[in-house]
Amino acid sequence: MKIEPFSGVGEQAKYIPALAKVNPDRFGMCLCSVDGNSYAIKDADVRFSIQSISKVFALAMCLSVKGEALWSRVGKEPSGTAFNSLVQLEAEHGMPRNPFMNAGALVLADIILTSFADPENDFLSFVRALCGSGDLEYDIEVARSERETGYLNAAIANLLKYHGTIECDVERVLHFYFLICSLEMSCRELAAAFLAFANHNIKFEYSGITLTSSQVKRMNALMQTCGFYDEAGEFSYLVGLPGKSGVGGGIAAIYPLRYSVAVWSPRLNGKGNSVMGMKALEFLTTETEESIF
Amino acid sequence: MKIEPFSGVGEQAKYIPALAKVNPDRFGMCLCSVDGNSYAIKDADVRFSIQSISKVFALAMCLSVKGEALWSRVGKEPSGTAFNSLVQLEAEHGMPRNPFMNAGALVLADIILTSFADPENDFLSFVRALCGSGDLEYDIEVARSERETGYLNAAIANLLKYHGTIECDVERVLHFYFLICSLEMSCRELAAAFLAFANHNIKFEYSGITLTSSQVKRMNALMQTCGFYDEAGEFSYLVGLPGKSGVGGGIAAIYPLRYSVAVWSPRLNGKGNSVMGMKALEFLTTETEESIF
Amino acid sequence: MKIEPFSGVGEQAKYIPALAKVNPDRFGMCLCSVDGNSYAIKDADVRFSIQSISKVFALAMCLSVKGEALWSRVGKEPSGTAFNSLVQLEAEHGMPRNPFMNAGALVLADIILTSFADPENDFLSFVRALCGSGDLEYDIEVARSERETGYLNAAIANLLKYHGTIECDVERVLHFYFLICSLEMSCRELAAAFLAFANHNIKFEYSGITLTSSQVKRMNALMQTCGFYDEAGEFSYLVGLPGKSGVGGGIAAIYPLRYSVAVWSPRLNGKGNSVMGMKALEFLTTETEESIF
Amino acid sequence: MKIEPFSGVGEQAKYIPALAKVNPDRFGMCLCSVDGNSYAIKDADVRFSIQSISKVFALAMCLSVKGEALWSRVGKEPSGTAFNSLVQLEAEHGMPRNPFMNAGALVLADIILTSFADPENDFLSFVRALCGSGDLEYDIEVARSERETGYLNAAIANLLKYHGTIECDVERVLHFYFLICSLEMSCRELAAAFLAFANHNIKFEYSGITLTSSQVKRMNALMQTCGFYDEAGEFSYLVGLPGKSGVGGGIAAIYPLRYSVAVWSPRLNGKGNSVMGMKALEFLTTETEESIF
Repeated sequence: MKIEPFSGVGEQAKYIPALAKVNPDRFGMCLCSVDGNSYAIKDADVRFSIQSISKVFALAMCLSVKGEALWSRVGKEPSGTAFNSLVQLEAEHGMPRNPFMNAGALVLADIILTSFADPENDFLSFVRALCGSGDLEYDIEVARSERETGYLNAAIANLLKYHGTIECDVERVLHFYFLICSLEMSCRELAAAFLAFANHNIKFEYSGITLTSSQVKRMNALMQTCGFYDEAGEFSYLVGLPGKSGVGGGIAAIYPLRYSVAVWSPRLNGKGNSVMGMKALEFLTTETEESIF
Repeated sequence: MKIEPFSGVGEQAKYIPALAKVNPDRFGMCLCSVDGNSYAIKDADVRFSIQSISKVFALAMCLSVKGEALWSRVGKEPSGTAFNSLVQLEAEHGMPRNPFMNAGALVLADIILTSFADPENDFLSFVRALCGSGDLEYDIEVARSERETGYLNAAIANLLKYHGTIECDVERVLHFYFLICSLEMSCRELAAAFLAFANHNIKFEYSGITLTSSQVKRMNALMQTCGFYDEAGEFSYLVGLPGKSGVGGGIAAIYPLRYSVAVWSPRLNGKGNSVMGMKALEFLTTETEESIF
Repeated sequence: MKIEPFSGVGEQAKYIPALAKVNPDRFGMCLCSVDGNSYAIKDADVRFSIQSISKVFALAMCLSVKGEALWSRVGKEPSGTAFNSLVQLEAEHGMPRNPFMNAGALVLADIILTSFADPENDFLSFVRALCGSGDLEYDIEVARSERETGYLNAAIANLLKYHGTIECDVERVLHFYFLICSLEMSCRELAAAFLAFANHNIKFEYSGITLTSSQVKRMNALMQTCGFYDEAGEFSYLVGLPGKSGVGGGIAAIYPLRYSVAVWSPRLNGKGNSVMGMKALEFLTTETEESIF
Repeated sequence: MKIEPFSGVGEQAKYIPALAKVNPDRFGMCLCSVDGNSYAIKDADVRFSIQSISKVFALAMCLSVKGEALWSRVGKEPSGTAFNSLVQLEAEHGMPRNPFMNAGALVLADIILTSFADPENDFLSFVRALCGSGDLEYDIEVARSERETGYLNAAIANLLKYHGTIECDVERVLHFYFLICSLEMSCRELAAAFLAFANHNIKFEYSGITLTSSQVKRMNALMQTCGFYDEAGEFSYLVGLPGKSGVGGGIAAIYPLRYSVAVWSPRLNGKGNSVMGMKALEFLTTETEESIF
C-alpha cells in the first residue's frame, strides 16, 4: 500500500493517559458508498476513542433544536489558530470562532445540556441510530482521565462562563464534553454514521434528531472549512473532502452524494491530525482523481 | 428578483478614490456552463476593477512556475483575521497564511516579478487568453491612486521585506501589486476566465501558463477555504462554492465540472464582500439545490 | 479639598457582589512619616477589602523564602495589557509577566501554599505584625462570593496549571488567592504596614518574614513599574511614587525614606484604579513638589 | 573593576552596517553630580551613535511645544512587548503605547517636523546647548544606512500614516527619525546633557526649549517605566534609576537632584540593551546603596 512509508511517522496523543495505551500501529479504514456498498480493511472493526469527531454529532443535535439561531452562540469561520487557543476567544469576547474548536464544542455541550431531557442518553441514542450499532458506549475511564488533566479545556470553559457564553455550571459542561469525546466507534461504524451526511437526498432523521437537506449540506461546508483545526486548508488542498479529525487518530470524511469514509491510525502530526489517516485519504482522492473540487 | 430587498445595503469601497466614483447601484451577473452555454443579466458587460480577484490569476502564474515549492513562501491556511492584519504576519515571522490575504498576494507579486521576463505584460496576456478578450487593460489611474493612499499595504510590504519574504524592492512590489489589482473586467469576462478553473477536464494552458488538473483542483480548494477574507466560512456555509471576491464589488465562483459564475455589485458589507453578490450566489445554489456539498 | 470635583466620578467594583454593598462615597486617607508622625482624615479608620494590595504582602513572603530564585516562576516586567489578560500568559507559555498581575499573584499564592506550614495563618500573622493590628481578619463572605463568580481567575489558574507554573490543586490556589484578597484593613493600618517598605533603613523582620534592605528597595521598584495594572505609566507620571492599588478602592504608596500613605475611595476608573485615590496622591506630590523623580 | 567578567558578553548591533564597524570592546563612563563635579573613566570622551537615547531629547522638544496635549498623540504606558512590535500598534488603532518605543518616537519626529521651523538644526542646537558641546554632529552615513535597511521602521511609519497618527510624508518622518538617532555623543557629553533632567531645581531652558520642573520630573518618570524596551522592569529592579538606552550601546541615567551618569559599551543583550552598561549601573547603585527606591 502506498502509505506504508508513513507508518511509523508521528506520535499518538500522550496527554490523555488512557489513549497513550493504544497500540500506535493500528490501522483501519472503511468506505461506504451511497449505493449501499462498503469496503473495509485491516482494523476497520476495532473501536477507538472518536474524540473531536463527536463534535459533528453534537453540532447536528444543536442545529436540529436551534436552527440558524445557533449562530448567535458560536461563529462559523475557520479559526486560523491552534485548536485550543484562548487568544481569539478573549479578543472576541467569548464568542468561539466555530463549533469545531474546543471552545465552540463546549458551547455545543452547553446547548445540548439545556435543550435535551437526558443529554447523556440522547447523544448516545442519536449516534447509535446514525450508525446502526446499538451497543456503542462511552469509555468512562477515558472521560475521567481527560477531565483530571484537562486544565486547558477547564481554562476555556471558565473563560466562556466569564463571558456568559455558557449557561450551565462549568463542571457540568466539562463533564459532558469529555464524556461525548470518549465515545468509542470503529471505522465501519463511523463511515456508516457519516453516510447520513454524505447522502443528503435521504431524509436525515435519527432518534428524533432531524435536519433538512440544506442543513446537512451546510454542516458539510463547515467540516470543509473548519474540520481540521489549523490544518483545514492543508486537508482541503490535499484531500478535497469535508471531514473531521480527532486526537484518537480517527478521521471521517465524505464525498457528498458519493460515499463516506473513515480511517484510523493513532500517530498524529504536530497539528493533532492522524498522519496515516491524512495520507490514506490523500491517496484515495488522488488515485480516484475525484474530489469535490 | 429575490435579491432586490438588499439592493441598497452596504457601501462601496471609499478608501480607493477612483473606486468611489462608480455608481453603487450597478449590478451584473454572468454564468458560463462547461457545456458552452452562458447566461448574462443587466450590467454583465460593464467592466469594473477586479481588485483581489486578480490574486487567483497571480496564484495560477506562481503555481505554474514554482509548483509545490511555492508553499515554502506562503501558507495555505485560512487566516482567521481581517484580510489585512499585520498581527499574524508578525507572529509567524513574515510567512503569510495564504495567497489570498494581501500579504500573501504581495509575495505572489514578488514571485511573478522575479520569475517572468515582462511581468506587467505577461500577466495581462495570461488573463486576456483566459477570458478571450484581447483588449483588457489595467486602469493606471486606479493603480496610482491606490499606491498613494496604500499605507497599510506599504506597511505589510515593508514587514515582508524585513522578514526576507520578498526579494524585490518594496516599491517595485507595491507598484506591481496595485497594477494587477486595477485590471478591469466585466462579469462576462470574469465568468469566461473562471470557466478554465471549473472545467479542469480541459487542459489548462493559456499564454504559456500551464497547470495540471490536480493543480487546478487544489486552487479551487484554496478559494473555498481562503477566498473571502474572514468571511470564508460564511460564504462556504451559505453558497457552498469556491470563489474569490474583490473590493470593487466583484465575485467569481465555480461549480467544478458544471459552471463558472461572476457577479458584480459595488456595495460591500463590513467584511469587504459584495452584499448583493453574495446574496445572488446564495439564491443561485439554494434555488438550484446544488452546491459542492 | 481640591479633589472634591472628582467625588462622584467612577463606579465601584460591581463584579464582586459583597463589594457592591459598600457606600461608594466613603473616603479615607492616612500618611505615616518615617520619623513617627501620622496624619489621618475622614474614614481613615474604616476597614475595607484590600484586594490586590495583598499581592505586595504575598510578594514579600515569597521573596523572603525564595530569594532571587523566585524570578524563575514569575517575571518582573510591566504587562502592557489589562490586568487579567490571558493573551500574554498563553503567548509566553504560562510565565506571568509580573507578580502583580492576577496570573502572577496566583503563582505567589501557589508558592506560599507550598512553602509555609499554615499558609492562611502565616499570611495573616505577617500582615498583623506589619501594621501592628492584632485583630485583622479575612472577610470569608467576600472570599466566597469572589470564588463563586471568579471565572476569569479560574481560567487563569487552569491555564497556569496546564503550563505547569503552579504545583498545587487549582481549587486550593484559587481559594487561598481569594482569601488573602479579602483581608480587611483601614487606611491607617495600610499606611502603617507600608511604612516598613518606605523605611528600609530599619531591618525588615515581621512574624518570621525577613527581607534585606536591597530586597525591599527592589520590591519598591516593582511597585513603581507594575503596581497599577495597565495604568502604571500614568500613575508614575502623575504621582511619581511606587504603590499598589486594589479594586476595593484602596491605594497604598510610599516615598522611600520619607513616608507611606494609604487612601481609600471605592469609585474606580475604567482601568480598575480608585479615581479619588489617584487624584489625592497626585495632589499630594504636586503640592509638596516632591516625588521620587 | 567588578564588571570585568562581563566584558566579552553579548553582541553589538549588527543590523545597522555602520554600527557593526565599532570596536565592541570600547567602554566609557562618566558621572556628573548636581554640585558640579564629574568623574570619567576609559573611553568617556569617545563619541558613539546615541540612537534611541535621542528619543529623550525629542520628547523634551515635543513636551515643550505641545504640553499635556502631547498625550493625545502617544501614550505613556510601558509596552510589555518588544520595542518594535507592530501588534500593539494595530490592536490599539495606531496609538503608540509610549514615546520611547519606535512607533512613539516616529510620532515625536512627526510633531517636531510640523512644529519647528528648521527641525534638523533646531534639534541639533538643542542638544548642543544641553551638553555644552557646540560641535556635535549627525553621522549622515549611519542615518543613510539605517534608512536603507530600516524595513521594520518603514512598516511602522506606514501603519501610523494609515491610522492618521502622523501628518507628514512617511519618507520625511523616517529620514528625520534616523537622522536624530545618528547623533554622535560621548559619555561625558551625554552625562552633561542629562544633568539638566537630574537637576530640575535649575530652570530648564536650552536653545529656546523650556520645561517646567514638573515636566522634567514627569519625563524622568517615563524613563523609569518605559526607558528600556521590554527590560524596563529589570532595569528598574536592578538599578533603580530612570534612564534610556540605545542600540549603539549607550545608556544615560539620572538620580534626581544627585547626579547624571552615562555609560557606553557596544555589546548588547537579547533585549537590545548594553550588557556592560547595565552591569556598571547596577554596581553603581548597589555599591553606593542608593537608588530612588
